Amino acid sequence: MARILTFLGKGGTGRTTVAIAAAKQCAAQGNRVLFAGQDPSPALSLLVGVPLSAEPQSIATNLDAVQLQSTVLLERAWEELKQQEAKYLRTPILKSVYGQELSILPGMDTALALNAIREYDSGDRYDVIVYDGNGDQATLRMLGMPETLSWYFRRFRQVFLDSDLGKTISPFIQPISAAVLNVNWSGDIFSQPAANQASTIVDQGKAALADPNRVAAYLVTTADAGAIATAKYLWGSAQQVGLTVGGVLLNQSETTEGMRSDFAPLSINTIPTRSGDEWQPLMQAMPDFTKAAQAPKPITINVAERKVSLFLPSFDKKQVKLTQSGPEVTVEAGDQRRNIALPPELRGKQVTGAKFQDNYLIISF
Amino acid sequence: MARILTFLGKGGTGRTTVAIAAAKQCAAQGNRVLFAGQDPSPALSLLVGVPLSAEPQSIATNLDAVQLQSTVLLERAWEELKQQEAKYLRTPILKSVYGQELSILPGMDTALALNAIREYDSGDRYDVIVYDGNGDQATLRMLGMPETLSWYFRRFRQVFLDSDLGKTISPFIQPISAAVLNVNWSGDIFSQPAANQASTIVDQGKAALADPNRVAAYLVTTADAGAIATAKYLWGSAQQVGLTVGGVLLNQSETTEGMRSDFAPLSINTIPTRSGDEWQPLMQAMPDFTKAAQAPKPITINVAERKVSLFLPSFDKKQVKLTQSGPEVTVEAGDQRRNIALPPELRGKQVTGAKFQDNYLIISF
Repeated sequence: MARILTFLGKGGTGRTTVAIAAAKQCAAQGNRVLFAGQDPSPALSLLVGVPLSAEPQSIATNLDAVQLQSTVLLERAWEELKQQEAKYLRTPILKSVYGQELSILPGMDTALALNAIREYDSGDRYDVIVYDGNGDQATLRMLGMPETLSWYFRRFRQVFLDSDLGKTISPFIQPISAAVLNVNWSGDIFSQPAANQASTIVDQGKAALADPNRVAAYLVTTADAGAIATAKYLWGSAQQVGLTVGGVLLNQSETTEGMRSDFAPLSINTIPTRSGDEWQPLMQAMPDFTKAAQAPKPITINVAERKVSLFLPSFDKKQVKLTQSGPEVTVEAGDQRRNIALPPELRGKQVTGAKFQDNYLIISF
Repeated sequence: MARILTFLGKGGTGRTTVAIAAAKQCAAQGNRVLFAGQDPSPALSLLVGVPLSAEPQSIATNLDAVQLQSTVLLERAWEELKQQEAKYLRTPILKSVYGQELSILPGMDTALALNAIREYDSGDRYDVIVYDGNGDQATLRMLGMPETLSWYFRRFRQVFLDSDLGKTISPFIQPISAAVLNVNWSGDIFSQPAANQASTIVDQGKAALADPNRVAAYLVTTADAGAIATAKYLWGSAQQVGLTVGGVLLNQSETTEGMRSDFAPLSINTIPTRSGDEWQPLMQAMPDFTKAAQAPKPITINVAERKVSLFLPSFDKKQVKLTQSGPEVTVEAGDQRRNIALPPELRGKQVTGAKFQDNYLIISF
């Protein structure tokens, strides 16, 4: 299990440069590091200084690098899916379709990247994985996927089970739907390895994201007003997918008082300009990534006081919408809806109040 | 029907600034213009100079602007889907799920944006729509979606029809699957409006993308080596989804001989630096967007000579993979696979040769 670091910020703020410096610094500290870049263009190799490929390669002591390629990852995932299908489905229907012919639809890039990171993470090969993604909403959607998917499964499972359609097709897709929907068809779900496997993967993803010692993001910005506005927005939006933001990296500018108050209580590290191949000054300017857990947690639940506190910096009251329908509480902000899975003690309880205070939305039951 | 323009390039090259200038210029020429921005952060409103929202609003003469918001678009799409379901499905199963509770999964942002653009395009409200998307692979995946989806439908339709599963569930999902898979269950597909509607939407999307007078992209770059490498890569990748690239916009730099040869035969327009609210010099530097059709077409099929020519600039022979399996020819490049729908005369014919010449991959049958 590795520590997974990623960087959020507006394009052109030097996000990839910072990510490389972070990877180099972690490697210099003795960690076995993987730098995984999502940008498929040759610009990434130019910046790293070595031609990258779809397989991890050593680029320095303790430091591997890989350029994630969706066509390669999809082909691999498809072959695995076909093997699963052949194992569990009575009459496999996918065997005549080849991975080499599949094109990439929107969303596949990040879903495949998340799966690749999960695989790199699951071995004991790396202590730190630096994921250099789009650094925007797309990276947040990706990291929020386990939680969002598990909500969709939970919600539609019952809808599906109650339907005529669900009752009819069960004999045909039993093991597959057991895996996907975590539905106990046979009364003995633990005998179905596919079911366990799928729900374990989603649960592990959720657990990793909820632990800032496992997954943390850092904001990258310059002094430009648009870059600061984007960083603040991504800071708030990250909380909506349950991602802890550990600090701010200010690229090639001096910290101002206004910036310090904008991003409080996060600390701001100033990153110097890179000159040629001289990475040392950038590496030394990196924060201590093991301290990400000191940053505010996205969600805190106090069962005794019947309170749920959501850290939602950069949003004001008007930009946050709270709804309760049935057993769920939904929070909308930063163009994402978060369905909060309440502990048993609060489940089904009516919301009695909600106030916005010091960047926290405090919901009382 | 509007002309749809979009801009591709590395983050930080001033893509959104160029997109705004293009929208202003088209409006100044008397076109009714919609500027549609994908960036959900307040940085977009800062740049436009007016607080934007999820509904188009007039921001100048002939110029509307909208900030696409996935949560709003998903809620709307969900209510429509429920209405369709109630109309066509015997026992609707989605009615108990509300749009207000749905979170956003990877890929939804661009799929919803494409649908929103389609709707804005279908009225007679706008002559030009400027889509300011991520400007990278994500925008290409989005515009390639009608073609990719229609391939997936085509390919899996037969697989599904041949399966036991397909035969069993048909009575239950007949009208829905007719719409999605374009499958003639009843022998009278034309009596099913949903089927026509879905296939019409996909076909219209494909037709629009194939016509450079309807959809065209422009590259935005600075003189930075990484920015140029990204622009070149996106130029080649755009061809893979069938998107015509009309020209290059060089931001705040002078054109060099090397750049001219890099991007030949495209013309390069130099865009001056913006000072404050002075957009006029940028607007005047814009190319004539009505001339996008003069740029090389992504694909040319010559039935008489039995040749298919694919324009694939920026890639070399090693980066392009050609495979033929069954009736399909698949071209892999730029982290996308393109399955070429051949005309009847060439369908099923064996590939007899392929050569790479002057940025073209020429396939002989």
